[in-house]
Amino acid sequence: MTDATAARLDRDDPLATYRDLFVGADDALVYFDGNSLGRPLRVTGERLSRFVEEEWGGRLIRGWDERWMELPTAIGDELARVALGAGPSQTTIGDSTTVLLYKAMRAALAARPGRSEIVLDRDNFPTDRYLAQGIAAELGSRLRWIDVDTAAGVTAEQLAAAVGPDTALVVLSHVAYRSAWLADMPALTGVAHDAGALVLWDLSHSVGSVPMQLDAWEVDLAVGCTYKYLNGGPGAPAFIYVAARHLADLVQPVQGWIGAADPFLMGPDYAPAEGIRRFLSGTPPIVGMLAMQDMLAVLDEAGMPAVRAKSLGLTEYAVQLADELLAPLGAVLASPRDPELRGGHVTVNHPRMREVTAALWKRDVIPDYRDPHGLRLGLSPLTTSYAEVRAGLEAVAEELADAG
Amino acid sequence: MTDATAARLDRDDPLATYRDLFVGADDALVYFDGNSLGRPLRVTGERLSRFVEEEWGGRLIRGWDERWMELPTAIGDELARVALGAGPSQTTIGDSTTVLLYKAMRAALAARPGRSEIVLDRDNFPTDRYLAQGIAAELGSRLRWIDVDTAAGVTAEQLAAAVGPDTALVVLSHVAYRSAWLADMPALTGVAHDAGALVLWDLSHSVGSVPMQLDAWEVDLAVGCTYKYLNGGPGAPAFIYVAARHLADLVQPVQGWIGAADPFLMGPDYAPAEGIRRFLSGTPPIVGMLAMQDMLAVLDEAGMPAVRAKSLGLTEYAVQLADELLAPLGAVLASPRDPELRGGHVTVNHPRMREVTAALWKRDVIPDYRDPHGLRLGLSPLTTSYAEVRAGLEAVAEELADAG
Repeated sequence: MTDATAARLDRDDPLATYRDLFVGADDALVYFDGNSLGRPLRVTGERLSRFVEEEWGGRLIRGWDERWMELPTAIGDELARVALGAGPSQTTIGDSTTVLLYKAMRAALAARPGRSEIVLDRDNFPTDRYLAQGIAAELGSRLRWIDVDTAAGVTAEQLAAAVGPDTALVVLSHVAYRSAWLADMPALTGVAHDAGALVLWDLSHSVGSVPMQLDAWEVDLAVGCTYKYLNGGPGAPAFIYVAARHLADLVQPVQGWIGAADPFLMGPDYAPAEGIRRFLSGTPPIVGMLAMQDMLAVLDEAGMPAVRAKSLGLTEYAVQLADELLAPLGAVLASPRDPELRGGHVTVNHPRMREVTAALWKRDVIPDYRDPHGLRLGLSPLTTSYAEVRAGLEAVAEELADAG
Repeated sequence: MTDATAARLDRDDPLATYRDLFVGADDALVYFDGNSLGRPLRVTGERLSRFVEEEWGGRLIRGWDERWMELPTAIGDELARVALGAGPSQTTIGDSTTVLLYKAMRAALAARPGRSEIVLDRDNFPTDRYLAQGIAAELGSRLRWIDVDTAAGVTAEQLAAAVGPDTALVVLSHVAYRSAWLADMPALTGVAHDAGALVLWDLSHSVGSVPMQLDAWEVDLAVGCTYKYLNGGPGAPAFIYVAARHLADLVQPVQGWIGAADPFLMGPDYAPAEGIRRFLSGTPPIVGMLAMQDMLAVLDEAGMPAVRAKSLGLTEYAVQLADELLAPLGAVLASPRDPELRGGHVTVNHPRMREVTAALWKRDVIPDYRDPHGLRLGLSPLTTSYAEVRAGLEAVAEELADAG
């Protein structure tokens, strides 16, 4: 493969022009970390400054009545339609991913009072694991850990062997943050349900990159991040989905005024709101949720199937280049070779990858590094070109050769 | 008193020119709700758009290493110095006020294992009360409620009668959200300590308006809001203060990666960070915490004593006008008449205040309404003029006369 291959792939890319919508996508930087922090859209700066002048500054407190109070669920519904495969009134923007996962775990466990076990895998994202450890300690629950290969994730067979009559909750990631393993969400959800457990999906590394059908797949709860493929900005608030069939029964422990049935009644006792609003607690972080709205409109226009096709094109090309350029230097693919099992990034392991990553950053090639020895190439579908993949992988090869 | 009085007060106001720094402070609107949502500074829109273009868009993921990871505690230290009367390394920007109160309550209760009682008053803000109810239910704690007059707050005598050897935690507001009663923080903290309890102060309605000395007053924990007198924008993230002497012992239950000792170790087990960072959980909401930084610089320049002096001037004038214009119409002052007992707002009760508030909003006079029957006049020191107070109170009198 030569640069001509990359040029041809870019020429044939039906989504190529979307790059022009983002700040900095036309500069020389090779950005392989859109799965940690997506680029801002060009309209975002103006949207924020206009919000300050016109809405916050102009409407002041009236903005809450006029638009902001409904914004978390309005964006949630749009997100559900565009990217989650879910109907309305089940999704809201809320707190950080961590805080929403905490609420979701606690709510799910409370809904399975006779059961005391949480099943999760050792390669799940640290926040998911740490939260489960803390909750298990406080509630006296047990954790059952599934061991997984660093280049894979949890299979239906593994999960079936782990769950049982005491399993209250299964916590899984849709796309593994290191390997990019794409979990079989409908099959795994079915296994959890067969055991009478609820399942909580962490969508942080898939939402906006991999299509999903939360309603059809009968997912119970899901939480995800909005600053990766949803380009919400650093620390943008996360979202939570709770299936409509559970909304009357699930309650979360952070009982704040905004999650109350009538926030402005301010009465003596807390009663949870009807519906998904009961998963809110404090005042919704409006400024932080502005940017993601434009990205949802862009994803809606492009369409998630096309986004996924571009994503697979990018990761497939990265895998081919890794075989061609990095394998001869001793690097090992740590992501699934089968595209059906792969999310939106590609990880390549080599003992020298920590120093290689540092050297790459100095030359404006920005991948991420994840222990142990993983160079993680995040290939955000709408902002990454094939030429960028080519230039980046060549740079990795050069630095790996120097480090070797 | 005539309009000439207001004109003289404005002419003599050493902080009068600060109004020019804010969006919309020169338009005809009478804004009495800066204690619910402060106006944006004129520099805020530009700060946000420049952040999008240069930092988020330009530095991308590198921004975390370069500045953002330290931003919550850097702003926390600045806030502590300017407005809390507290030394560094004890304060951080975090989640919503509600979520931080939850963490603070849970951490404090865990630090008093032999005690099972939470003391709070019935007029505390709903989120504080609802959280305590939920936590008491989950931990089997008892709530001991202090009844207070709607025009007052908790006195040291009342608190001394309520606490005892089983009291783990006292939860109080520095300024009461309805009456504006200003609690005697050092005295009440001392009463809680004499009983062996910890005390958690909600500073939402005082921070940036009323000076305080958290360190000297030996406060244990405090949480406050940043979108009122700190002008952080709708839903801006809150802050938490934990006294240095407690930081090694207090741990909170939402164990996320950003509160871990080494977030990027991503190891198998959670260990809390040293210091105040252990009260963080998820990725810090950077976009949401940008605006408050400029307001802290403004407060630092003006100085909290001068801000308090202006605040007292405004509320004193509002009380005088309420006596002159509203009392003859049957309205009753529901805030302390003694300025030493009053925070930054003034509440006036009348059975018709709900409809009066609605009528006032239609004529661009924007107070708040709080049950029962309270018209709440929030007089943000740096954005409110005496002329505005005069115009607003005259409008209240007109609407009250029409409604009567």
